[in-house]
Amino acid sequence: MTCLQDTCARIGPIDRSAGERAQRLLDAKTKPRRSLGRLEDLACTLAAIRGSTEIPLPTKAIVVMAADHGVAKEGVSAYPQEVTHQMLANFAGGGAAINVLARQVGARIVVVDTGVTEPLPHTDGIRVHRLGPGTCNFTHGPAMTREQAIAGLELGSAIADELAGDGVTVLGIGDMGIGNTTASSALTCALIGVAPEEVTGRGTGIDDEGWCRKVEAIRRGLVVNRPQRGNPLDVLAKLGGFEIAGLAGVVLGGAARCVPLVVDGFTATIAALVAVRLAPRARDYLIASHRSVEVGHGRVLDALRLQPLLDLDLRLGEGTGAALAMPLIDASVRLLREMATFAEAGVTDSEASG
Amino acid sequence: MTCLQDTCARIGPIDRSAGERAQRLLDAKTKPRRSLGRLEDLACTLAAIRGSTEIPLPTKAIVVMAADHGVAKEGVSAYPQEVTHQMLANFAGGGAAINVLARQVGARIVVVDTGVTEPLPHTDGIRVHRLGPGTCNFTHGPAMTREQAIAGLELGSAIADELAGDGVTVLGIGDMGIGNTTASSALTCALIGVAPEEVTGRGTGIDDEGWCRKVEAIRRGLVVNRPQRGNPLDVLAKLGGFEIAGLAGVVLGGAARCVPLVVDGFTATIAALVAVRLAPRARDYLIASHRSVEVGHGRVLDALRLQPLLDLDLRLGEGTGAALAMPLIDASVRLLREMATFAEAGVTDSEASG
Repeated sequence: MTCLQDTCARIGPIDRSAGERAQRLLDAKTKPRRSLGRLEDLACTLAAIRGSTEIPLPTKAIVVMAADHGVAKEGVSAYPQEVTHQMLANFAGGGAAINVLARQVGARIVVVDTGVTEPLPHTDGIRVHRLGPGTCNFTHGPAMTREQAIAGLELGSAIADELAGDGVTVLGIGDMGIGNTTASSALTCALIGVAPEEVTGRGTGIDDEGWCRKVEAIRRGLVVNRPQRGNPLDVLAKLGGFEIAGLAGVVLGGAARCVPLVVDGFTATIAALVAVRLAPRARDYLIASHRSVEVGHGRVLDALRLQPLLDLDLRLGEGTGAALAMPLIDASVRLLREMATFAEAGVTDSEASG
Repeated sequence: MTCLQDTCARIGPIDRSAGERAQRLLDAKTKPRRSLGRLEDLACTLAAIRGSTEIPLPTKAIVVMAADHGVAKEGVSAYPQEVTHQMLANFAGGGAAINVLARQVGARIVVVDTGVTEPLPHTDGIRVHRLGPGTCNFTHGPAMTREQAIAGLELGSAIADELAGDGVTVLGIGDMGIGNTTASSALTCALIGVAPEEVTGRGTGIDDEGWCRKVEAIRRGLVVNRPQRGNPLDVLAKLGGFEIAGLAGVVLGGAARCVPLVVDGFTATIAALVAVRLAPRARDYLIASHRSVEVGHGRVLDALRLQPLLDLDLRLGEGTGAALAMPLIDASVRLLREMATFAEAGVTDSEASG
């Protein structure tokens, strides 16, 4: 059995009975039943993932993977390709949005160069696991080889495993890569079976002409590569990106360690869908942080049957939405741990007999 | 001029030019323009309220006001009236949801007994400013006198003023009072001009029969009291509650000190609407934290032209939604303060010439 198959095999079912026990604990707290709405659902999900109602205060990390995309040459982004490299340096310097938000919510960030066009001269604060100098342009042939896709999955899985071993109990995933919403839309088409124009958005902000080029590039990618919808590894290799493979691996590795995965925007969510197609049980370890402006994102969330926590018109990526959702995760854990029960507080429970 | 009139007169217009300057600063940060969506709007709103783009990290407080309601005798709540008193003790003991969430987000909470039926024997951790032993039952006549309503408004305003003087820069408002969604629905009918059944919800969780009693009580309250829609003080006195008057006062006092007010659910939002009807400029100091399950809440938010930050199926009150929104406020301030610009980070700005 390969390392990847082994990881997938280690993903067990979540413990729904622990989730039900968490709901009973919440029902005894001093508040009307279910009046904390989705925070109660979240606490129950975390209990089911952990297999216990004893949930420690979250120890958080966000894995941000960066890579370049050959399809960027088709003029599908408002930004030049060099920006991936520059933003990687910005992550290392602590000046990007994800740095600010991760500091705020007390999450460690792990930035990984999975293959930007040019490696950075200084790599302090960055992990270098390059699968190549960016993917190939998928309008001419596969974005990557099957071996690269597997290496990306195994890389991500190993990082998640390492972080879980370090005591991380909540893992966020985020992406950076000029051109990667084009790859994400192409993957959505191939995995869900929808037309490019239905799931292609404006990415970093392209104009109408750029949008048409983007749709056309995706259409050519689908025609040239003929991805096999039932074979997620084939789809990932032909149309994906190194960071997408890596993040799908983080989902698999996290789920195998019973760590909840807080998914960011469109690209991170398509990575999660790739993971779930490889190992369906991984789905139950996912927490959707937000609904982004990207039109394709809603389709992928629907395919995963996930309802996001936030809807703030974000479209940045980097794991920013995942970071913003983490205080809600903290809140759900703290409410379960710290709220007084009706009995403890001497408050009359109208439904005690119910 | 009375103290209340003086407070209303001190509420100035917000500084929209400071908001525009904040947007220009955000446009120079290393991210596609507007890609942080509503967090950018929030930063601009905070700058406009403060009249400056130099926004300190928030110093937060949440004012939670509790009171009893005569209309509770009509069988409009799933919980007995004694629960208001018991929950006040729970707030003092630190075991309620708002205690847990305020601790998490680093907000001080100020709990005020504005008039529960029986005063607490021990009042450590509670401010006692009782306007009476609960309001009168508004199905028989006015809930309170005009003098009580004014005293409530002045009480809240004085607390906001004191907290602003103590250095609080973000103020949340929350409520506790068995029967107060009935008062909130009645106020909504009287202030907006809608029928009781359109804005009456399940509160803490009443059944169908209880809902019918609630609608009927509101209808009788409107018929018996004939509130004057154009006279917010008259409406507040006839159908409101002590905590609602107090929270409306917090909004007025906070706005007069240029402090943003983070509004919680249905009852806190109707208090904000009362404040805005008394002093229309107060509207621009409001931040809607969440959209609750209560049907009337959306109508009040619409009347205030506010779009809430969160939608998590909450229906607890206490300021819990306000507390949950505070990390988003922190995030917006931190992004404005801490993110690197394109120039600082050496990142190519595709729109630099635009």
